[in-house]
Amino acid sequence: MSTIDPVQLTADLIRCPSVTPEEGGALILLEKVLSAAGFTCERVDRGGICNLFARWGDKGAERTFGFNGHTDVVPLGDETAWTMSPFGAEVKDGFMYGRGATDMKSGVAAFAAAAIDFVKDTPPNGAIILTITGDEEAEALHGTTALLDYMQRENEKMDVCLVGEPTCPNEMGEMIKIGRRGSLNAWFTVIGVQGHAAYPHRAKNPLTAMVRLMDILASYELDNGTAHFDASTLAVVTVDTGNPATNVIPERCSSAVNIRFNDAHSGESLSQWLQDEADKVAQAYGLQIDVKIKISGESFITPPGELSELVATAVAAETGVVPALSTTGGTSDARFVKNHCPVVEFGLVGKTMHQVDERVEVAQIPQLKAIYTRILRDYFA
Amino acid sequence: MSTIDPVQLTADLIRCPSVTPEEGGALILLEKVLSAAGFTCERVDRGGICNLFARWGDKGAERTFGFNGHTDVVPLGDETAWTMSPFGAEVKDGFMYGRGATDMKSGVAAFAAAAIDFVKDTPPNGAIILTITGDEEAEALHGTTALLDYMQRENEKMDVCLVGEPTCPNEMGEMIKIGRRGSLNAWFTVIGVQGHAAYPHRAKNPLTAMVRLMDILASYELDNGTAHFDASTLAVVTVDTGNPATNVIPERCSSAVNIRFNDAHSGESLSQWLQDEADKVAQAYGLQIDVKIKISGESFITPPGELSELVATAVAAETGVVPALSTTGGTSDARFVKNHCPVVEFGLVGKTMHQVDERVEVAQIPQLKAIYTRILRDYFA
Repeated sequence: MSTIDPVQLTADLIRCPSVTPEEGGALILLEKVLSAAGFTCERVDRGGICNLFARWGDKGAERTFGFNGHTDVVPLGDETAWTMSPFGAEVKDGFMYGRGATDMKSGVAAFAAAAIDFVKDTPPNGAIILTITGDEEAEALHGTTALLDYMQRENEKMDVCLVGEPTCPNEMGEMIKIGRRGSLNAWFTVIGVQGHAAYPHRAKNPLTAMVRLMDILASYELDNGTAHFDASTLAVVTVDTGNPATNVIPERCSSAVNIRFNDAHSGESLSQWLQDEADKVAQAYGLQIDVKIKISGESFITPPGELSELVATAVAAETGVVPALSTTGGTSDARFVKNHCPVVEFGLVGKTMHQVDERVEVAQIPQLKAIYTRILRDYFA
Repeated sequence: MSTIDPVQLTADLIRCPSVTPEEGGALILLEKVLSAAGFTCERVDRGGICNLFARWGDKGAERTFGFNGHTDVVPLGDETAWTMSPFGAEVKDGFMYGRGATDMKSGVAAFAAAAIDFVKDTPPNGAIILTITGDEEAEALHGTTALLDYMQRENEKMDVCLVGEPTCPNEMGEMIKIGRRGSLNAWFTVIGVQGHAAYPHRAKNPLTAMVRLMDILASYELDNGTAHFDASTLAVVTVDTGNPATNVIPERCSSAVNIRFNDAHSGESLSQWLQDEADKVAQAYGLQIDVKIKISGESFITPPGELSELVATAVAAETGVVPALSTTGGTSDARFVKNHCPVVEFGLVGKTMHQVDERVEVAQIPQLKAIYTRILRDYFA
């Protein structure tokens, strides 16, 4: 009985030059492989972006397990610095090289191979849905969001979903992600009155207010962490004036802060806090402070429970490592999927993602397929 | 009996294009006029700068009155914005226009004319020394300093000195300057460890320390003013980082502060304070703070007494205005002269100095000559 080799599928995907937002042949390849295995496939393209929806089993089945992933990859960076072909999928010393090797063509190959072999070997009483996007690395406006919109329109439903992003910092199996902190950027402009440094009482120095406001924000303890999250953090990332003359008090200065926040806050509550603090300082110093805020994403959590336990059990069984449940790290499409159903993320070691000479340890690919297979087996048991 | 017309002499000087550090014919003209009146003149040129020393009476006389001034002028600025010729000395509606009209060719003309006529009309039992420099507006490295060095070498001595800078903010006669605050600039560079804004504990954010340090400095009350001085002031004049990426904690940032200080401090005591505060913050945050300090000038004072009373009495008699004794304002060559003898500054209204269409109210020039003449008469009485 033939099985899908996830290493070969990873190599085939790496050879598709799908630099975001190019489809590059990757989704066409997956659609072919999945269709041949009996999956109902639908291309869900939007805004010039290609996406693939695939389902095995009945729409509206009693239990539906979902996988989510992406085939687009980040640009090569300094192409001359690559020592291996970035789209060659060459193997050397046990590692397969190429852009997307870890992030996340190996993950997509592993869950596609696991799903195909699983439904063939032991057809479950339920359905499996794969949502695979070509726009995760760029704007992500027409990627997983487009797939979820399609599913809503079509009454397609996943009961749980696993995102196959690389989640392990160093060792295979060590980390499952069950949520993410939110992220917010705020930009401040303080506008005062220019003047001579010898007569500060005739001017209104915007910097006096700016350093006070930034010190207040940087010193504030947002929280001490919550049940599943580290403490929220605020970093002042820039303060700029551009005044070369020490005898001149400048008219204005600007700054920016970045907040990574847990479930003790929302983008809105933090926006209100920032505006209030700015208003208080503006009033105290009698000058104008403009605040511009952009919420990049709210925090979210799938609390430890059935889904994380299912994944953790499979990981421990296949690797001998008990994974930590973490909410650290940057953004991923789980932030969209969480609006549809409980979601966790698990994949292989992501150390070289986005780097020159991105590479995956070849042995981890079948191991990841085995983990995903065990998750499906346990889920439908 | 012919007298020197200070208005004509002002016009002649304005027509010399002595943009700093060019001599422009101004000192040559003064040397000619003073020599003809019996003054011993000596050109004291140094470092490419022209300066003029002139004395009437004997070296080592029992009483020697000094005048100090400069003939160099600041550049024109936006030349096309001038409505009158900047070197034309044209008169319109009672004002004479030209670069240096107030700062300070009218002042030099007034004290030269006063001295010449005074020694001719009522030869005093004593001496008068005029030190006139061509380098006050630029570096001032080889200007009045060169003249004072020359005087020391030659055993030339003034007992008191009047600097003829324009000192009146709005009305003729309203202000005598008896000292100046000191000035100091400090530049700070905080060097931390760059990192991702999502993981501030892995980085060392230089901005956290910078805004704290700047807030400490800006909030500190240096003093409440002293007998003859306003309170010292500190202005943060720039903070700069240049980091456009909100997800990055930058490695370093820089800032600058300007301090104007009275006689409760010295450049050295303030330097020590700034270094101590920087060290404390550096230690508290575990990062490096580099401090660079430049003392532009120490504060100085000629306490109210004989000299200021002499000048104030003459001003009040000629103008009907009782002048205030002030220590406000920017720097002048009095900061050098004070090392030689007691010094005060008095001149006409300086409102348009350094501006486009710089101009002097013509009537103030003979009035200033009359004040200087009365000062000489009272001094030698």
